[in-house]
Amino acid sequence: MSARLQQLHVIDGEYRHLEKAAAVLHWDQQTYLPPEGVEERAEQLALLEGLAHRQLTAAETGRLLDETGSTAKNPRGDESLAPLERDFLRVMRRRYDRAVKLPADFVSDSARAEGLSQAAWAAARQNNDFAAFLPHLKTMIAIARKKSEYWGFGGSGHSLYDGLLDIYEPGMGEAEIGVLFAILRDRLASLLQKIMRCSSPDTSFLRQPFPVERQAAFAQKLLDHIGFDRQRGRLDISAHPFTTTLGSHDIRITTRYFQDNVLSGIFSVIHECGHALYEMGFPPELRGSCLADGASMAVHESQSRFWENVIGRSLPFWEGAFPLLRDIFPAQLAGIRAEHCYRAVNEVKPSLIRVDADELSYSLHIILRFELEQQLISGELEPEHLPAAWREKTKQYLGMEPPSDADGVLQDIHWSMGSFGYFPSYALGNLYSLHFTQKLNADIPDLAGLVAAGQFQRLHDWLRDTIWVWGCRLEPAELLHRVTGEKLQAEPFLNYIEKKYGELYSC
Amino acid sequence: MSARLQQLHVIDGEYRHLEKAAAVLHWDQQTYLPPEGVEERAEQLALLEGLAHRQLTAAETGRLLDETGSTAKNPRGDESLAPLERDFLRVMRRRYDRAVKLPADFVSDSARAEGLSQAAWAAARQNNDFAAFLPHLKTMIAIARKKSEYWGFGGSGHSLYDGLLDIYEPGMGEAEIGVLFAILRDRLASLLQKIMRCSSPDTSFLRQPFPVERQAAFAQKLLDHIGFDRQRGRLDISAHPFTTTLGSHDIRITTRYFQDNVLSGIFSVIHECGHALYEMGFPPELRGSCLADGASMAVHESQSRFWENVIGRSLPFWEGAFPLLRDIFPAQLAGIRAEHCYRAVNEVKPSLIRVDADELSYSLHIILRFELEQQLISGELEPEHLPAAWREKTKQYLGMEPPSDADGVLQDIHWSMGSFGYFPSYALGNLYSLHFTQKLNADIPDLAGLVAAGQFQRLHDWLRDTIWVWGCRLEPAELLHRVTGEKLQAEPFLNYIEKKYGELYSC
Repeated sequence: MSARLQQLHVIDGEYRHLEKAAAVLHWDQQTYLPPEGVEERAEQLALLEGLAHRQLTAAETGRLLDETGSTAKNPRGDESLAPLERDFLRVMRRRYDRAVKLPADFVSDSARAEGLSQAAWAAARQNNDFAAFLPHLKTMIAIARKKSEYWGFGGSGHSLYDGLLDIYEPGMGEAEIGVLFAILRDRLASLLQKIMRCSSPDTSFLRQPFPVERQAAFAQKLLDHIGFDRQRGRLDISAHPFTTTLGSHDIRITTRYFQDNVLSGIFSVIHECGHALYEMGFPPELRGSCLADGASMAVHESQSRFWENVIGRSLPFWEGAFPLLRDIFPAQLAGIRAEHCYRAVNEVKPSLIRVDADELSYSLHIILRFELEQQLISGELEPEHLPAAWREKTKQYLGMEPPSDADGVLQDIHWSMGSFGYFPSYALGNLYSLHFTQKLNADIPDLAGLVAAGQFQRLHDWLRDTIWVWGCRLEPAELLHRVTGEKLQAEPFLNYIEKKYGELYSC
Repeated sequence: MSARLQQLHVIDGEYRHLEKAAAVLHWDQQTYLPPEGVEERAEQLALLEGLAHRQLTAAETGRLLDETGSTAKNPRGDESLAPLERDFLRVMRRRYDRAVKLPADFVSDSARAEGLSQAAWAAARQNNDFAAFLPHLKTMIAIARKKSEYWGFGGSGHSLYDGLLDIYEPGMGEAEIGVLFAILRDRLASLLQKIMRCSSPDTSFLRQPFPVERQAAFAQKLLDHIGFDRQRGRLDISAHPFTTTLGSHDIRITTRYFQDNVLSGIFSVIHECGHALYEMGFPPELRGSCLADGASMAVHESQSRFWENVIGRSLPFWEGAFPLLRDIFPAQLAGIRAEHCYRAVNEVKPSLIRVDADELSYSLHIILRFELEQQLISGELEPEHLPAAWREKTKQYLGMEPPSDADGVLQDIHWSMGSFGYFPSYALGNLYSLHFTQKLNADIPDLAGLVAAGQFQRLHDWLRDTIWVWGCRLEPAELLHRVTGEKLQAEPFLNYIEKKYGELYSC
């Protein structure tokens, strides 16, 4: 390897260490930080993010990239380099170009504001007090708009919102997403209408108290069942479930448990576990480098939503996992069989809360947020009017009205962190996930039998060899094409949904 | 405030943020880090410590100190400055002079080696495998010697070990400590011999299982009882109890529980709480500055050991706290009264484990370590021969022989972190603690009544106004003189011990 490439790897490594150190502080803030420690934590994070940014954007980085032949037009650099190095250069160039356009003060001010905003959101959500969060939301919107502007968006051709979407889904703008979401919305809404006329499965056994300590014990068993490596990760509790990578061998997930809603904890654990398996599955040669990352947020969500839904809400899965659940809740589950459980976890029942939504109506929650984000970032919608707009769209898409902002506009952490443009990833993840599943079913015809038997090794191997092995070496469209030969469409997902729920609700 | 002083405060603040970020990563390593995350964590810490060091030792810092008139001979700078600023300059000058003498590579290499060494120690202790820890111990000794050398110790007049002691107890060398410890050793050994001839109190009620979950519940109640502020701190579990300050309002303690030794968990919680109260008690004007720190490690230990022993092992304390304990362990404590408990927690019974030692023999554990450290750092004792030397001295001072290295030389974390010179602080802390207590008893004659009633506010106020308020503005000898008018001696502690244990063991 050339000395220049080596130096770039050192810069990348140090940047990564600083990012991971900041991730530890973030994780701690969500899980264990004493209430009064919040403000100083924001200062600590601002300093770390500022240093990381300074490290990445040093003139040295730009010079080294230029000298390896990596340019905006030809980010992969000199053709004589090894493919792995060329992919490394592509990702470094993108990150450098992105970062260098943001002034250092803007980056640390943003980090500080995000820390305070998250804390304000958590309190506002608890107190159902949107007004207390509003000034922070405005700051977050202003920061997001400014960031996109720094990156050159907002002129002709590319909207400010395109610039934010591009963070999470490189190469996909609001026009393209709008087309996919329109197809999704129409077919999902029509299926939902049809299903609402059928009778619901019996879910009365779920309406009993499930003590949270025992839910936590089940969650650990479930992680072992699926194959989450406890030597390289852990599960903690936070207000909002998330996955965070604090090191190549330190991948953490969080969840929360509700005594009266046992499914919420279970499916958030499976969802986050899906993210964690992806992060744990990057091959050794990518570890410690910027290539050890998901191809995009939507591809990341394709993994979490694959585990949560395609696997976790399947009959074979509950044939394997139900005995574990019954061991822990024998009284609550007396007389219940795996198939009851399968039907209950697939009950279609529009919910106010995105993370508790059924598989069918989930994407409608996303489309709602996508449309509101578009309006917030374009300026068409004033943040003051967001709660009303939220209520209006919830009524329109889900047929119900949130009784409070805590169960409405304040339910998600994303906007409090300034993560505008992230939400579409969830629904796009559904789409990617079913493209991948079609190929998986062709490659492992006896998958259902393996899953029912609790044998997940071949599935892990397939995911590792097909998807995880690439890290972010390929752009999402390239990855999809390499795995399936296809372009992203709504049909594989819609066909799967229509078949599954057509069978479950055959009234 | 002058622009120069302001700049120094910015440097101090950023340095502190980096140190606290590193402290979060350290805390996490001791409490929650998945096993395979250890190596990368060491890299992250090395980077952070390196950056903090680079920040502190920038030429800018030296120039600003010089320009405020702060020199090695006159560290407090210009006499026209406010006293608070002059104290700030004294501490900054000391830290700068110390840090600038250590090469940056040495600092990050040391941090990396410490991370690995701590992890190796934890495994070696678990597996009772001194040989596995030996290479790390050698590295830690070499680093400690080198560090002291960089600071100019090891020539004529000042030994390498003096340089390490000076980190924790500014101004006190091995000769002075040796004199105090010789007095301590002789009078404690003679009292111990006398007591060993008396009959022991009945402690049979302690030899029952106390489930650890309920011990943890009691620990939280105990913290509330004493007045630990849960909004500004928390209690977690780690292999070795410790206190760490992650922010002005984020002070954390850890402990561990043994089902068969309920006192171990209780007294380590009170001990660490004593450290935490000191850190929580620094006044607002010192927060976020290098002055928000203990006067020395021994003064810090004077606080923790005051709470643990002078308060926590007193009859009034158990009159107040015993009902809380009995509520949680009614079966184990049936028929037991507070006075039984008081006698039991003061049983003199030499133990192999320092942290489980009774108040009387505790200092002998320290003297043992002090003497071995002297020999390890001077080179008189080869690390290979440390386990044998440990066993020999344990036999000599405590009359017993450790059956394993896990219960002997591997029991403490300190050497694995390279913290040579730290141990004497515990016994010196005992000495400071009784100097302070004499004054406290004169100022609050009804202290016993307040403690028995669970009313700790006046005690907190006294400690805050007398000791905590100073942070590290005063050197330890100055602080002691200001509070008591005295110089550090062994007599106040020995008189207290001889009176207390003379009464408890009057055979």
